[in-house]
Amino acid sequence: MLSSAEPTRRVQDMLGDIDIPVASYYGAQTARAIANFQISRISIGHYPVFIRAMAFVKKAAALANVELGDLDIDKGSAIVAACDDIADGILADQFPVDVFQGGAGTSTNMNLNEVIANRALERLGLPKGRFDVIHPNNDVNLSQSTNDVYPTAIRLALLLSDETLISALDELATAFELKSTEFSDILKLGRTQLQDAVPMTLGQEFKAFAVTLREDIQRFTEMSCLLREVNLGGTAIGTGITADPRYAALAVAKLREVSGVDLKSASDFVEACWDTGAFVLFSGTLKRTAVKLSKISNDLRLLSSGPRGGLGEIHLPPMQAGSSIMPGKVNPVVPEVVNQVAFQVIGSDLVVTLAAEAGQLQLNAMEPVIVFNLLQSMSIMANAVRTLASKCVIGITANETRCREHLESGTALATALTPLIGYEKAAEIAAEILKSGRPIRGLLEEKTTLASDLVDRVLDSKALVRPTRFRSPTTER
Amino acid sequence: MLSSAEPTRRVQDMLGDIDIPVASYYGAQTARAIANFQISRISIGHYPVFIRAMAFVKKAAALANVELGDLDIDKGSAIVAACDDIADGILADQFPVDVFQGGAGTSTNMNLNEVIANRALERLGLPKGRFDVIHPNNDVNLSQSTNDVYPTAIRLALLLSDETLISALDELATAFELKSTEFSDILKLGRTQLQDAVPMTLGQEFKAFAVTLREDIQRFTEMSCLLREVNLGGTAIGTGITADPRYAALAVAKLREVSGVDLKSASDFVEACWDTGAFVLFSGTLKRTAVKLSKISNDLRLLSSGPRGGLGEIHLPPMQAGSSIMPGKVNPVVPEVVNQVAFQVIGSDLVVTLAAEAGQLQLNAMEPVIVFNLLQSMSIMANAVRTLASKCVIGITANETRCREHLESGTALATALTPLIGYEKAAEIAAEILKSGRPIRGLLEEKTTLASDLVDRVLDSKALVRPTRFRSPTTER
Amino acid sequence: MLSSAEPTRRVQDMLGDIDIPVASYYGAQTARAIANFQISRISIGHYPVFIRAMAFVKKAAALANVELGDLDIDKGSAIVAACDDIADGILADQFPVDVFQGGAGTSTNMNLNEVIANRALERLGLPKGRFDVIHPNNDVNLSQSTNDVYPTAIRLALLLSDETLISALDELATAFELKSTEFSDILKLGRTQLQDAVPMTLGQEFKAFAVTLREDIQRFTEMSCLLREVNLGGTAIGTGITADPRYAALAVAKLREVSGVDLKSASDFVEACWDTGAFVLFSGTLKRTAVKLSKISNDLRLLSSGPRGGLGEIHLPPMQAGSSIMPGKVNPVVPEVVNQVAFQVIGSDLVVTLAAEAGQLQLNAMEPVIVFNLLQSMSIMANAVRTLASKCVIGITANETRCREHLESGTALATALTPLIGYEKAAEIAAEILKSGRPIRGLLEEKTTLASDLVDRVLDSKALVRPTRFRSPTTER
Amino acid sequence: MLSSAEPTRRVQDMLGDIDIPVASYYGAQTARAIANFQISRISIGHYPVFIRAMAFVKKAAALANVELGDLDIDKGSAIVAACDDIADGILADQFPVDVFQGGAGTSTNMNLNEVIANRALERLGLPKGRFDVIHPNNDVNLSQSTNDVYPTAIRLALLLSDETLISALDELATAFELKSTEFSDILKLGRTQLQDAVPMTLGQEFKAFAVTLREDIQRFTEMSCLLREVNLGGTAIGTGITADPRYAALAVAKLREVSGVDLKSASDFVEACWDTGAFVLFSGTLKRTAVKLSKISNDLRLLSSGPRGGLGEIHLPPMQAGSSIMPGKVNPVVPEVVNQVAFQVIGSDLVVTLAAEAGQLQLNAMEPVIVFNLLQSMSIMANAVRTLASKCVIGITANETRCREHLESGTALATALTPLIGYEKAAEIAAEILKSGRPIRGLLEEKTTLASDLVDRVLDSKALVRPTRFRSPTTER
Repeated sequence: MLSSAEPTRRVQDMLGDIDIPVASYYGAQTARAIANFQISRISIGHYPVFIRAMAFVKKAAALANVELGDLDIDKGSAIVAACDDIADGILADQFPVDVFQGGAGTSTNMNLNEVIANRALERLGLPKGRFDVIHPNNDVNLSQSTNDVYPTAIRLALLLSDETLISALDELATAFELKSTEFSDILKLGRTQLQDAVPMTLGQEFKAFAVTLREDIQRFTEMSCLLREVNLGGTAIGTGITADPRYAALAVAKLREVSGVDLKSASDFVEACWDTGAFVLFSGTLKRTAVKLSKISNDLRLLSSGPRGGLGEIHLPPMQAGSSIMPGKVNPVVPEVVNQVAFQVIGSDLVVTLAAEAGQLQLNAMEPVIVFNLLQSMSIMANAVRTLASKCVIGITANETRCREHLESGTALATALTPLIGYEKAAEIAAEILKSGRPIRGLLEEKTTLASDLVDRVLDSKALVRPTRFRSPTTER
Repeated sequence: MLSSAEPTRRVQDMLGDIDIPVASYYGAQTARAIANFQISRISIGHYPVFIRAMAFVKKAAALANVELGDLDIDKGSAIVAACDDIADGILADQFPVDVFQGGAGTSTNMNLNEVIANRALERLGLPKGRFDVIHPNNDVNLSQSTNDVYPTAIRLALLLSDETLISALDELATAFELKSTEFSDILKLGRTQLQDAVPMTLGQEFKAFAVTLREDIQRFTEMSCLLREVNLGGTAIGTGITADPRYAALAVAKLREVSGVDLKSASDFVEACWDTGAFVLFSGTLKRTAVKLSKISNDLRLLSSGPRGGLGEIHLPPMQAGSSIMPGKVNPVVPEVVNQVAFQVIGSDLVVTLAAEAGQLQLNAMEPVIVFNLLQSMSIMANAVRTLASKCVIGITANETRCREHLESGTALATALTPLIGYEKAAEIAAEILKSGRPIRGLLEEKTTLASDLVDRVLDSKALVRPTRFRSPTTER
Repeated sequence: MLSSAEPTRRVQDMLGDIDIPVASYYGAQTARAIANFQISRISIGHYPVFIRAMAFVKKAAALANVELGDLDIDKGSAIVAACDDIADGILADQFPVDVFQGGAGTSTNMNLNEVIANRALERLGLPKGRFDVIHPNNDVNLSQSTNDVYPTAIRLALLLSDETLISALDELATAFELKSTEFSDILKLGRTQLQDAVPMTLGQEFKAFAVTLREDIQRFTEMSCLLREVNLGGTAIGTGITADPRYAALAVAKLREVSGVDLKSASDFVEACWDTGAFVLFSGTLKRTAVKLSKISNDLRLLSSGPRGGLGEIHLPPMQAGSSIMPGKVNPVVPEVVNQVAFQVIGSDLVVTLAAEAGQLQLNAMEPVIVFNLLQSMSIMANAVRTLASKCVIGITANETRCREHLESGTALATALTPLIGYEKAAEIAAEILKSGRPIRGLLEEKTTLASDLVDRVLDSKALVRPTRFRSPTTER
Repeated sequence: MLSSAEPTRRVQDMLGDIDIPVASYYGAQTARAIANFQISRISIGHYPVFIRAMAFVKKAAALANVELGDLDIDKGSAIVAACDDIADGILADQFPVDVFQGGAGTSTNMNLNEVIANRALERLGLPKGRFDVIHPNNDVNLSQSTNDVYPTAIRLALLLSDETLISALDELATAFELKSTEFSDILKLGRTQLQDAVPMTLGQEFKAFAVTLREDIQRFTEMSCLLREVNLGGTAIGTGITADPRYAALAVAKLREVSGVDLKSASDFVEACWDTGAFVLFSGTLKRTAVKLSKISNDLRLLSSGPRGGLGEIHLPPMQAGSSIMPGKVNPVVPEVVNQVAFQVIGSDLVVTLAAEAGQLQLNAMEPVIVFNLLQSMSIMANAVRTLASKCVIGITANETRCREHLESGTALATALTPLIGYEKAAEIAAEILKSGRPIRGLLEEKTTLASDLVDRVLDSKALVRPTRFRSPTTER
């Protein structure tokens, strides 16, 4: 891993000596983890929000330890300053451990502990590695275990990312709302099971997209409550071993201050130490949104299909040449990438499920793969949603002519007549429309005794797209 | 399908004549569906709660139609009485349509419409098939579409089943709570990553199971809110075509009365007509519970492994001979069947996801497979949970000797000393324990200057299983 | 479970006395299993092919035991005759154990052992329960363990079902081939990403469906090889404990004779005892077919969408009224049910995966849920495939006019010209077609120097649907 | 995206002007794709094997075009040389398009086309962008479409990666075989359903791991056949539009030479253009291996659990400190990371399934997400397998004492006696062993009339771990 020329320093842990780059802030345990987990070439630093959340947790713990008198104030101050640096992204390249890592997050925690210790030493004017002064385990990790620090940071990272996702969803919902207003008078064919059904407006169709996304924003807001319960202070298995009895409450209070996020202590730390139910349900909520985004993307691709040999009722803005061989072809690449992202999020939900099910006794050792998948899902989904809003939806235009043709050429109006002439008679007229291509009005005159002004009212476009019931004294019923 | 001897009557629909058994209450459209969907040999009648929910919806619609003057009161009364009969399970064998069925539930809806019509005719003293008097579409289905009736009934059926599931979960949580109290003084080894970690009580371990299940009960209660929003009155695509503008609100009010379930109208019927997001999230909640049940079952199997060559810390009550070849073997069959059910529920969540994603434009034609999977999941999970409570958990006994041996033979106490002697020194002592098998107390005397009364206090069993921090002025640190 | 009036007999096992119906052939261990596993109300008897496979295995074991001198010939003959009865379906209602069952199939195996023992006793003129004469464990289960008998029967059942599935797929492929020939001259628009692409024939489109299914038939044939390796004779954990060293080979030879299926012994019985890899891969093959069937169904629904407001290039035969509210509507219910079945099969693949992953040490205790899902998948998929062939594909007709309109109204011909005029010039002409609606021929005359006979050859319909390259000495390139 | 100071050049496509870095080899279409797909920050260049496969395909096409006289030999030579450079990894940083990308791979194909064109121009001494000389579409992409080039390259990349994976699996199987020999005489308890079952050797247990992996190597070898069929020459939708009739066969021949991989033309290009069945089944095979690796890792973690409070029958080599709080703790981090990777591979199989199902009509637009998931799975799985072999399995040691204790303390020997004393009597003795803790030998003397030399032979350790049947003339049966 080290290029031969890079200068190294020798560090030590329970397994012996190991050489690491002179410039690195991490230490022996991180170096072991790097060597042990050469898996994906995606490091934990790929998700800065998680590093930031870890730094917040470490800072909160240090503040609590100082206040309880368990950590020297000078050491504590140096540790806090180091955490601030990391939260600010200053040492972003010092977190090279692979996102896939055995050990329930210990390697990530030790990566943080070591970088914080060395950064704190640096701030005190001391060389890296002087762990006799500030020790990664005894000082930085004081009153902590990976098993409470790491899941707490996961929750915090998700809550911090949540805002980005919600804001992206809001942007997309707003885009659909704008289009809904723009298209509110465009009458078109509604379809069920891909078959011609009954009339609606294009505005109604787009409004539904906005409504469904706004519901999901509401769900994310609710779900975030589940994430607010943290097990910080439970230490190794939730019994709080080695921690001052006042520590748990104090550390969470500090973390609230440090992060600005409203967190609280779990009611049962033993349960909270192994339980990953909140991640499963949060992932399920991401999946729900993915399913909706995929359905919406499918609809946009269907409605814009053609332009001549498809439905062609809307046009998506062209974003790039669609084909290396077919000149002039433009493809719905933005909805397509949203589909792809949705599939990935659904797949990641399965990974989270599998990992959650694999928890055993007092801990879930698979949490690192849960973190990776949740952070990836939130990140790619927020990006895809914003892309869909800004590079597709806001530029959509309607083909009003096509909409009208589709509505008028078929049997979409026959349903409106069933309350007046009954299901069988309406079915007979519908069949005749399809066979002869004749317009419905003439057929109604020929086959029923409906008064022509009643027919006018029934077939009025405003009446067709909202609840309206007509009653007639005498019909062919 | 018909045995040659069975007497038949000839009925008719848009596709022509078809013979059905004389005794059957269903009609031509149901007969077509039976013939078209010979898939699983599991009929919609396998889930009585869904038939009951459909009957409730049909009754509410009839009551609303009568009140609005769109349905003759005599016909309406007969329809209502027929719905009551069906809700009471009287015609339970009249719903033979396969749970797999194309058409977004139309076949199920028509099965209900036809049985209700014929039952109502019977109550009026008329022969089956007199649809000129009471018509399955024009009367029973009045102001309705499969597309609003069917999803409304799904939601209602889930809400009705929800109580059964919640009560089963409560029974299981209570069983764990009882055991938690019973085992509150049994000290044992806590394990992380299957490795010896730190002390806890068996009571704490069982308490966590109860806590985690009680959280899920809370989640189901919350999730049920999402199911309360129905699109009844939206008819074909949510625009309410053919329905009186007052109908939607009135029908939901009637349905609340009829079912006793607190339902309300969706805010946007066009969205509600195709949106299956509530099913996806509800399924995700079922999956979360499945994941927890599987983890708990895994733990019970692990803790009871042996009896001699495993952990053997608890005994599960023997329920049946465990082997056809190995005499005296008793297996953890009840937790195992819970695992199996959990896997099925997780698989069904994927089916629901796939079906939800396949919605197109104004409808989701895959709803029947969603219904089947959700009803199956709720039913098998409630049964499995109740079985786990009554046939396993309440009979669990502890092997206190084994618990103590596991705790005392290893390094579980070393962690408690780190605040006093530091991580490295404690690691050195832990290594010595494993190598020599010597007890920790002697090693502490030999390798540290800790006062013996402090050691006593640190190693006190009560202190070990709760947050306790010891501070020492002079140590080997 | 027992109705109060039903006469019972008292039987006994290691857990004590239990009452069972007098008429039942099963005994105490089955009764325990019935009581313990009240889960799904779907019994193992729902899949007769599996009961048959179990009976074959039991018969083969008895024949081998007799030949080795370990089983008395009279007892052996009675057992063999009982197995034949069961294989013939005579006691089909005697297998009421739930498909969900803890214990790696022990309950199923004991259900078979008990029914066989009692049936054999009956054939010997003795009353049920005379296990001192023929014992379910000592005689019927002789040289066997659930752990070798049960997985062997699973494999056998899948191989027996395989033929049904393959024959259904062949029927469907043949239907598509017939249509492919029928439609071989119908020119139409090919589409990529739902956008107008280049010309093809409807015959080519349907041919591809047949080709892809024939490939899957080939895959199933190959996969069945993996299922042919059985662990019969490995007994409890694959070491063959209690079995004569000659037994394994002999029992498999007998099973080949009895079943007519070409089976062989696994190379390593210890591995074969816990390994479920063949089930995972077989399930993956089912999933592959499900994915293709779903894609084909989606295409059929898309191509037949409308009839007026969609693509409308083909018509599916109407199978039932499509709507309870929309008169005359006909839906693609058969492809839809195929989609639903495909989703279920994909979900079941996940269940199989989860169950396979849950194997521990020398056994996989989750096999019952694997059996259920594989048998259900094979059964519903074969039924769906046959339904698709006979109730949909063979009745499909083409709308040739619509096909031609879609082809001619767009830019599908522009690609053919790129070798002659280059990508940019062709793109310019394509844009002009879409803008002006003018036919391509006139635009070519106006904007290029292509000779008109060359244009004729390029735009010849036969050339457009196969590899053809035109080269021109002078163009506007 | 561009830092303000970076010098740019202006390029053009159908959508207008766009500025790109002067140093970049890609052009306008790539720049559009970069801007359009800001999703995951993982670029297609993250998987060099895929870039290499694309370069091979492009080179083969150029060679074929030259040979057919459709591409000038000088241009062709420059293109070929550029492809060689890319295959050699020289321009590895020039493929920045996101792995998530709408458009069925067009952006990836155009990225290659543009880089190849500019590199070829450079080799001809011309400045980048002189597309009038060598054009990305008209020359580099000649006779090609993304729709044949891209799936061909996917297959080729998988075949190239396959060797790495198979070699890793072979390394792991070999490691298990070595351990199997080393442990061949260590007697231990076999367990089913985590309960004490019957004797076996530790060597048998490890042998089974090797056997199961060798089977998977065989499966990958077979599966690779499915990947060998490519649709190169089918161009846009498989009809071969714009391609010389001789091109398809020639291009595949060239690709065989260029890549050294044995490829062949698909039998039906129209089917091959949209069919992703080979990817689904290949992914299913990866999943099968993942399931096995997860099961093996679970077993290794279980067998090494403790060291004192678990099974403790084997020791895994310590790779890093196991805990930030618990001194001396060592965790099974390598098997754990294998579990995590297995879960990811299973999740990716679902993504592949979803993407495959989403194919429509003549193409599958979701292929980019299939590529990403398959390449990621192969890469992380090969890495995990190699890590498991080299950092865990080769260092495993056995705890023979523990193995013997577990075997002798329980009822594992009782099964061997059932052929002699019957199931019930053996069960009675087993119960007595568990109750009294007395050794089996004394109980046999007391409760049966078995001759003591027969007992010796039955309980001989060699007899216990292989098929052996004892027959006794007189027993207490």
